[in-house]
Amino acid sequence: MLKVYLAGPEVFLPGGRELIERKRALSARYGFTPSPLHADLTPTASASPLARGIEISRLNEERMREADVCIANLTPFRGVSADPGTVYELGYMAAEGKPVFAYTNDPADYSARAATYFAGGLHRDDDGVLRGPDGQMIEDHGMADNLMLEGGILTRDGVFVRAAALLEWDDLSAFERCLADARRALTGRQPLD
Amino acid sequence: MLKVYLAGPEVFLPGGRELIERKRALSARYGFTPSPLHADLTPTASASPLARGIEISRLNEERMREADVCIANLTPFRGVSADPGTVYELGYMAAEGKPVFAYTNDPADYSARAATYFAGGLHRDDDGVLRGPDGQMIEDHGMADNLMLEGGILTRDGVFVRAAALLEWDDLSAFERCLADARRALTGRQPLD
Repeated sequence: MLKVYLAGPEVFLPGGRELIERKRALSARYGFTPSPLHADLTPTASASPLARGIEISRLNEERMREADVCIANLTPFRGVSADPGTVYELGYMAAEGKPVFAYTNDPADYSARAATYFAGGLHRDDDGVLRGPDGQMIEDHGMADNLMLEGGILTRDGVFVRAAALLEWDDLSAFERCLADARRALTGRQPLD
Repeated sequence: MLKVYLAGPEVFLPGGRELIERKRALSARYGFTPSPLHADLTPTASASPLARGIEISRLNEERMREADVCIANLTPFRGVSADPGTVYELGYMAAEGKPVFAYTNDPADYSARAATYFAGGLHRDDDGVLRGPDGQMIEDHGMADNLMLEGGILTRDGVFVRAAALLEWDDLSAFERCLADARRALTGRQPLD
């Protein structure tokens, strides 16, 4: 059975532990073995906060190396883009040559979220380039986030599932579609057959 | 000579091309061969925005595979965290087993920036965990951003340089310190000897 690494910022959410357990159970239903829980990896209690952070990073990288496939939750987190820890992990597993899949609970293009972030003050310059009020270029490729994320997924024949409407963090319908797509892509099997 | 991949969001900035040229020239001064410019990689003009985005991603990944070392600009970009494209690339090159270095022009801890983002509404719960007004956990490891970023750098004996005070995008003093540290770490040579 393929081992799946579930990258995402759920660990930060209230009730995150339960949400992660639901994602792990769903993964198993779709034929994947989920990586062990974050909380199973207890760093030394006596360590400093910095040393604990480094140790968690090291253990997460170990879990990634042991996994066969990545499913990343790229729902925007505290701003216009995905959680940076999740993005690091997506890039990490892509470089390992593993199939990478992702989903987001936000249906909007990156440029639409940037327009909200800049309170609508976007304009096109004389060359047709979309820019913010600070003159900075806004990516406008019809993608959900920075092109390295979606590009890294699509060049590896992965799938990036976008929810059809904005969903709460505990709504796992986009995640479940992503699991079904990953199962189909990797095993040739329909979901739950 | 070691080839350095300069990851960063400069391409989005007004005057970004000139800034990237300054970074490339500085890299050469410190003994590194900088990756070719983004603009050298011209995707097919007739392609759709989505196809162009995928092509740029593919070409950037090619440049990373050809490079020996990564220096990432993790200065916060449009929010509380670093540019996600840069973070993807940091994770990518870490997984390739290459030395990774980073710098930020913002001296603040992640938790301090989160406090600004949430307009100060942070609190510690009964377990001592720092939380936002939405109840979400705020990382509090004394790091500049999510622990996967700084952890990935430090577990590989890289260096993460933080500016001593908030600097403009075109201030390259933190970048230059990072170059000097990378040169010392990788060649055993002092800067510019």
